[in-house]
Amino acid sequence: MTRIALDAMGGDHAPNAPIAGALLALGALEADDRIQLVGRPDVVEPALGALLAGEYAGAAHLRERIDVIPATEVVEMSDKPTAAVRGKPNSSMAIGLRLQTTGDSDAFVSAGNTGAQMAASTVFFRLHADLTRPAIATILPTARQPVVMLDAGANVDCSAHELVQFARLGDVYVEDILGRHSPGIGLLSVGEEPEKGSVAVKSAHQALLGAGLNFLGNVEGNDLARGECAAGPIDVVVCDGFVGNVLLKFYETIAPYLVGIAARASGKDPSEVFGSLKEMDYANYGGAPLLGVRGVSIISHGRSSAKALKNAILVAKRAVATDMNAHIGRRLADGAPGAGAA
Amino acid sequence: MTRIALDAMGGDHAPNAPIAGALLALGALEADDRIQLVGRPDVVEPALGALLAGEYAGAAHLRERIDVIPATEVVEMSDKPTAAVRGKPNSSMAIGLRLQTTGDSDAFVSAGNTGAQMAASTVFFRLHADLTRPAIATILPTARQPVVMLDAGANVDCSAHELVQFARLGDVYVEDILGRHSPGIGLLSVGEEPEKGSVAVKSAHQALLGAGLNFLGNVEGNDLARGECAAGPIDVVVCDGFVGNVLLKFYETIAPYLVGIAARASGKDPSEVFGSLKEMDYANYGGAPLLGVRGVSIISHGRSSAKALKNAILVAKRAVATDMNAHIGRRLADGAPGAGAA
Repeated sequence: MTRIALDAMGGDHAPNAPIAGALLALGALEADDRIQLVGRPDVVEPALGALLAGEYAGAAHLRERIDVIPATEVVEMSDKPTAAVRGKPNSSMAIGLRLQTTGDSDAFVSAGNTGAQMAASTVFFRLHADLTRPAIATILPTARQPVVMLDAGANVDCSAHELVQFARLGDVYVEDILGRHSPGIGLLSVGEEPEKGSVAVKSAHQALLGAGLNFLGNVEGNDLARGECAAGPIDVVVCDGFVGNVLLKFYETIAPYLVGIAARASGKDPSEVFGSLKEMDYANYGGAPLLGVRGVSIISHGRSSAKALKNAILVAKRAVATDMNAHIGRRLADGAPGAGAA
Repeated sequence: MTRIALDAMGGDHAPNAPIAGALLALGALEADDRIQLVGRPDVVEPALGALLAGEYAGAAHLRERIDVIPATEVVEMSDKPTAAVRGKPNSSMAIGLRLQTTGDSDAFVSAGNTGAQMAASTVFFRLHADLTRPAIATILPTARQPVVMLDAGANVDCSAHELVQFARLGDVYVEDILGRHSPGIGLLSVGEEPEKGSVAVKSAHQALLGAGLNFLGNVEGNDLARGECAAGPIDVVVCDGFVGNVLLKFYETIAPYLVGIAARASGKDPSEVFGSLKEMDYANYGGAPLLGVRGVSIISHGRSSAKALKNAILVAKRAVATDMNAHIGRRLADGAPGAGAA
């Protein structure tokens, strides 16, 4: 039995999108898995009742696998990250996360305030040894297959050591969550030669050569877009959070723009064409685990639909089922001082 | 009279693309302007003759405005940057650039080896005071208007001072070459707040507030894609060469991919749709001046067509006509120690 806590108050479309996502997910989870809807009961209960009486009437039998966990406060999108930790100790986010620390839940999913979720997850779960901050991994659609990019914004000014740790985190993420064996790991740089790049990247390149990973070497922006480099397909691309954040936000905005002008040039409605681009549909990925914390905290986009939140719950399930956090702990220990050479 | 030297041996389609580009440009330049075709006479003369006897027969009257300047060596795309400076002193690139140092030419254009052109331009022309390396500015098509991004790859690990100098260089570039008054300058970062970003970016933000430029503040990846931020339209985006290089290469590769899938989803041939996307056509911009050197050195893409090289020559003409280098010298001096506050 896996118990997955869901922030019923988080995201642009709360509470309906999280609640509907929970109902959709329960149909796909194992029969004894449970969802814990965390939020204000006066909001959650009526919304759940309305969905089960209306659009989701066929899912009434799933109600018994849902627990409503009361939380009187809500972290707003505009709140500072510390709000979730100190300012609002009874928020759905804080209570949902703390369920894991008392052994009452196995995972947490939220489409709420990402900065707050990062801060609260770090405080409540603590970090694996040898990490200074958690990392955010994002899945980028490419011309070949989706590539996991990290860090996507949590860490700027990264050291070479941090970049190597990102590689280890991404390696486990792809193995456990995406189910790809021996992921190909590229280090984002400005040239394929090891001597190209910033000081930190050049040093990380040397360290990655002996890290026991399937290290493909430096990859450039064009390799990332193609999803492969000369050494093979790319599963993970490692970069500091500055580059990752800029690239991700640029991509999220330019992609629909380009598809839109191409569609109009073809005389089609952009939404019609965009809808056919399955690989660009964020909802297929749902959410990404916050990597490096000793707990399962899945971050979903604020605009997540019910379908996206369903998929985020399935990501949570997979992180629990594969024991991803223990796997991460072992993998990070491989690179700790005193560990044997890989 | 402006004399523009053109590397007849540089680029994937040399010598025909440069020579045809020269003929196209002469039709658009002033009547007393001249083009200096620099290259091996045994290659250039027959190619020029064949073009004037064939496809460009109507341009025979332009022949008298072309000088063929002999250069016995050629810098290959695979040569190290130093080749153009020390290894091949008689290359078309070296000779074409040196014409300016002896007062025999006003500008140089090449679609050849960019690293070599940068190195040779720096050695032969020297840098404006207060610069350590030249910067490469690139024009990015956005949802609004083309944005000049610099640095696009020459400088990694930039200091705050270098970022501020890039802002000054970009400011003059946009005023003189693109003809936009008081360009809006954005500093690429991971959040709009001044306290967001790397150490160098945060420090550059503070310096830019008092730099006498139309500073829009931090801009994010999505702002860059939109071509505008909350403070207004973006004309220049400032970043270090690592971020700029990654973003540019990613964009150059993902754009045709996205347009391709959108076109196929519409049942159209991708090339047909792509051809209609004028704003994505590199040839419209042709080339970018290497910024910071005391001379005019226009860098064109290796795959440049005749049309792209024609436009690169017109960029060279504009850099000469606006006296861009003197303008850059004055603008950089504004930020030098001892200069009055703007």
